[in-house]
Amino acid sequence: MRISILTICPEMFGDFKNTPLISRAVASGLLELEVIDIRDFAPGSFRKVDDSPYGGGAGMILRCQPVLDALESVRMEGSHVVILAPSGTPYTQKDAHRLSEKEHLILICGHYEGMDARIYPHADELLSIGDYIVTGGELPAMIIADSVMRLVKGSMKEESTIEESFENGLLEYPQYTRPAEYKGQKVPEVLLSGDHEAIRKWRSEQAFEITNKNRPDLISEK
Amino acid sequence: MRISILTICPEMFGDFKNTPLISRAVASGLLELEVIDIRDFAPGSFRKVDDSPYGGGAGMILRCQPVLDALESVRMEGSHVVILAPSGTPYTQKDAHRLSEKEHLILICGHYEGMDARIYPHADELLSIGDYIVTGGELPAMIIADSVMRLVKGSMKEESTIEESFENGLLEYPQYTRPAEYKGQKVPEVLLSGDHEAIRKWRSEQAFEITNKNRPDLISEK
Repeated sequence: MRISILTICPEMFGDFKNTPLISRAVASGLLELEVIDIRDFAPGSFRKVDDSPYGGGAGMILRCQPVLDALESVRMEGSHVVILAPSGTPYTQKDAHRLSEKEHLILICGHYEGMDARIYPHADELLSIGDYIVTGGELPAMIIADSVMRLVKGSMKEESTIEESFENGLLEYPQYTRPAEYKGQKVPEVLLSGDHEAIRKWRSEQAFEITNKNRPDLISEK
Repeated sequence: MRISILTICPEMFGDFKNTPLISRAVASGLLELEVIDIRDFAPGSFRKVDDSPYGGGAGMILRCQPVLDALESVRMEGSHVVILAPSGTPYTQKDAHRLSEKEHLILICGHYEGMDARIYPHADELLSIGDYIVTGGELPAMIIADSVMRLVKGSMKEESTIEESFENGLLEYPQYTRPAEYKGQKVPEVLLSGDHEAIRKWRSEQAFEITNKNRPDLISEK
């Protein structure tokens, strides 16, 4: 898989490239990750990527030309182009699975107050990672790249991802590890019983109960 | 404001600390940001922070002792403790505003397959940044720290945050900047008219239309 990230803050991706998941995927040839600096496509010595909004208002808007020229520099037949924007479709684990099948993912990070709306039709989709505002699309792009790469075969032990939250439409059951008692708080008896069927049943009940309590919307969606 | 982040991957926060928003807030004394390595609280030369789950299953679970000892090392009267976990309450812009009022925010990053459930009662709340799975709570903690700090008075020009998506329960209207025509795509006439009332009306209609199309759930929530 190839992931191309278009950003005006390429320096934000240094640590991300060094995370175990990403660096191992790159080292093993599963992932080719490139971070493209949109400024490299802006003309003049000022490398001006933004300008004030038509119609007035605060803040600066990313300009069409540098973003679209940066996009054209990496776009190939079959590339899948995603713009990270708060007005996008809410990103979920289903989208992570869908995107993990793509050969080439291009993630465009918005910034400042937004980007010129004429850029949007050049993307295959607009995605939002949640109903809150962050400074730019850089952290959201890392969220998408991480969640997608975890699902690419070979990048993780597969059984690790099967019982996680959202994979079966429920939140994950509570987990415990040693010691069996910590400052008076005990691990539920059943988990120490060695009775695999009872453990399976308890976990399934707990997953349902926790989902029903914290996220009833997930159950009603099913 | 003070933000303490508890993590087993402190090296992931280097670039984040250098982002303009965070580094300026630190330089101006608005923010004290500390990243605490949970491993420093794990005993022995192996600094073992995780162990396998009771009852069987894949992956490793963060242990109570190092996490809770790390927490106690920074917790003060009035500290607000948040655990980042997929089973948490969905984080929204309203929470960002709420958390921006706290004097001391402690963000605990989960990792691996999860953390011992006996850690949860020690937090004031569990928050989830979205319905997807990432490798750890580190990127989610950055998302929360960024979205919260943007709202702390003095860290940004205030007018920049008022008309953004979610602030009035709607997505933001489309924005445009120069040139007025780019490869055949024109900026809507009204934005070039100089008629401020017409522009205000158009933007308000557009915000409603886009929200109704992309996120009808936001309108029905109102």
